[in-house]
Amino acid sequence: MEQPTIEFFWDAASPYTYLAATQVEPLAARAGAVVVWRPFLLGKVFEATGNRMPAAVPAKAKHLFCDVQRWAQHYGVPVAFPKVFPVHSVLALRAGIAAAEQGSGAAFATAVMRAYWADGGDISQPEVVSAVAASVGLDGAALLLQAQAQPVKDQLRANTEEAVRRGAFGAPSFFVGEQMFWGNDRLVLLEEFLSGKIAA
Amino acid sequence: MEQPTIEFFWDAASPYTYLAATQVEPLAARAGAVVVWRPFLLGKVFEATGNRMPAAVPAKAKHLFCDVQRWAQHYGVPVAFPKVFPVHSVLALRAGIAAAEQGSGAAFATAVMRAYWADGGDISQPEVVSAVAASVGLDGAALLLQAQAQPVKDQLRANTEEAVRRGAFGAPSFFVGEQMFWGNDRLVLLEEFLSGKIAA
Repeated sequence: MEQPTIEFFWDAASPYTYLAATQVEPLAARAGAVVVWRPFLLGKVFEATGNRMPAAVPAKAKHLFCDVQRWAQHYGVPVAFPKVFPVHSVLALRAGIAAAEQGSGAAFATAVMRAYWADGGDISQPEVVSAVAASVGLDGAALLLQAQAQPVKDQLRANTEEAVRRGAFGAPSFFVGEQMFWGNDRLVLLEEFLSGKIAA
Repeated sequence: MEQPTIEFFWDAASPYTYLAATQVEPLAARAGAVVVWRPFLLGKVFEATGNRMPAAVPAKAKHLFCDVQRWAQHYGVPVAFPKVFPVHSVLALRAGIAAAEQGSGAAFATAVMRAYWADGGDISQPEVVSAVAASVGLDGAALLLQAQAQPVKDQLRANTEEAVRRGAFGAPSFFVGEQMFWGNDRLVLLEEFLSGKIAA
């Protein structure tokens, strides 16, 4: 049987994407699948679909970090409320595309989300993105340059438009072929789908 | 140790509330807790908080029933897209309060959500609510009368206002003391909280 691919659309600005990012590679390993990490701009997804971030509803905003902390405990991963929230993630996402071109897409994505959601880093700042790149063995200065190149910018826009066209309205969004799974809380369904326990 | 209470705020119009309703009593039994089933009007919660139903975003609406079907497979429970959607659930909720006064709150709530989300019943209709009541051993005609009494109407309004005051913005909402858990997909966290695996 062909090895299934999980396309993982991520935006570092999203706490549930950080949580899912800590789980998706072990999940894929259990399922015999591979993960393709694809940066996309959640803000543009919201614009295109009329959806909005959870924190846009005051009562949801009030509950959000409590919920995120519970998931972090559930998974046994660190989390700390960011100093800057929400954050402009476009530079980090462009750097994510550049890192993927160098074969370090997963490592960079994981590190940049941890920098923001656990280590207090302001990932809108070039020096923070550069340090994250260095922490996964990339040349930070070179990656920042590459991140500003037009083809990288175009790729981020294209990823975002593609995700919306395929039905995405939030993050994280996972695709296995045509099947979309939305949310950290749907990883259980994604895994059951891959194992054949549930149908599409 | 005192037996914990799970307050379960439910509205039969919500598919995720139906899904959660199929799981909450076994969960409580495992945790040594009791469930208090409390009807509330989700539409009024949305009005009060500025939140909105998932189906209000077209891309979410398109994905909604696919997601609900996956959860139904995950749990091994029946589901069928309702003939009337969305539905006016106020009569069913008032009947739920009247049924609870007769000690059949859980049985009626479970049956009325199954009637709507699995059996194609239009629970906005008195004869459907009456038949549901009869199926759990209640006098349907008497329950409909009781459901129209002012104290029952007032109780539904009071439940809704209380839930909002305590932080609810959607359904299902669960409370263990001051701790709120929102969503069918948070049952795993609710259970871990009750077992002490995660802190509040």
